[in-house]
Amino acid sequence: MAPAYKLIYFNARGKAEHIRFIFAYAGVDYVDERIPKEKWSHYKSRMPYGMVPVLEINGKQVAQSNAIARYLARQYGLAGKDEWESLQCDVLVDTLSDLKQALFQYRMEPDPLRKDERKQTLLKETIPFFLDKFEKVLEENGGFSVGGALTWTDFVFAVSLENFELIFGKESLDHYPKLKALKDKVFSLPRIQEWIKKRPVTEF
Amino acid sequence: MAPAYKLIYFNARGKAEHIRFIFAYAGVDYVDERIPKEKWSHYKSRMPYGMVPVLEINGKQVAQSNAIARYLARQYGLAGKDEWESLQCDVLVDTLSDLKQALFQYRMEPDPLRKDERKQTLLKETIPFFLDKFEKVLEENGGFSVGGALTWTDFVFAVSLENFELIFGKESLDHYPKLKALKDKVFSLPRIQEWIKKRPVTEF
Repeated sequence: MAPAYKLIYFNARGKAEHIRFIFAYAGVDYVDERIPKEKWSHYKSRMPYGMVPVLEINGKQVAQSNAIARYLARQYGLAGKDEWESLQCDVLVDTLSDLKQALFQYRMEPDPLRKDERKQTLLKETIPFFLDKFEKVLEENGGFSVGGALTWTDFVFAVSLENFELIFGKESLDHYPKLKALKDKVFSLPRIQEWIKKRPVTEF
Repeated sequence: MAPAYKLIYFNARGKAEHIRFIFAYAGVDYVDERIPKEKWSHYKSRMPYGMVPVLEINGKQVAQSNAIARYLARQYGLAGKDEWESLQCDVLVDTLSDLKQALFQYRMEPDPLRKDERKQTLLKETIPFFLDKFEKVLEENGGFSVGGALTWTDFVFAVSLENFELIFGKESLDHYPKLKALKDKVFSLPRIQEWIKKRPVTEF
């Protein structure tokens, strides 16, 4: 019997959207529970570590966005064809997390002077450095992140790049044709398109 | 034939020590390359994403501390007995990373007022919250992190708790007997003891 899944998160893409992409692509039914803002403190105290996303699997609560995504990816054949490829998936996901962490620190910086410094470093150094590296990885893997075939890492890229374009503008990926093409390729998958059409519209 | 491993990191425990514990416990030979401070810029430009640790596997460079550790743990039977247990390993490692990230942000905070605020929140809320949760997990798993048997997550805990005691004092784990016992249990494993005896003495 198929496991009963309930994904608990805010009404946002955020740290849950790549999980939703895996479910959509694998054609797996799940409850997409979105916490109303005013009920967060109620939920928070009931989550394993006070954080979301949480995936309930047959009623058992599991925390941590990428741990959940990796587990599901392994169940549904989206974690590469062998352990070496699974490793490459993990390396890219964690490296992308490092970049997102740098973006997050910039957005959270309260000191205007330091915020501007962070912005300059990001735009002139950090972002081009990582995107150039990723572009090269995609080139080496036939337009995919890993092994010339679709993996959960491609979903992580696609949802991150969607946010990237929202923050920095549509033209921000012009210098990165492979990244742009990967995002478009993922968003064109029929089951992903179906999901995009019906998902709630949220800012992030 | 066994793969040729070279682990590249600073002369520190830091983000590499749990990987060294896996090698030690599994009895695997590897080159433990420690970058002299003055050569970092030379190394940096040669690393896949300008960061360490990097593991060379038969000459191929692999980045990201926990991706490397997870891959090795799977090779050497330290990632739980099934996918569910591997998931639990990942959840705990990522949650511990969240806590370490909070500690890191406190240590890096340049504003003395905000630093003190962060410290108070850490000591009164964040640390007790997470350590209480972890203590309960260990209780449920017979003194181990996952599944009542040794996994790489126990190594991640052991090396993190060693640093924790260094920062907050030996008595800081007095309220967490299971965590203390797990650390002691890992450090008492004959092959880990052997490694501790011969490893270079470093501050962190």
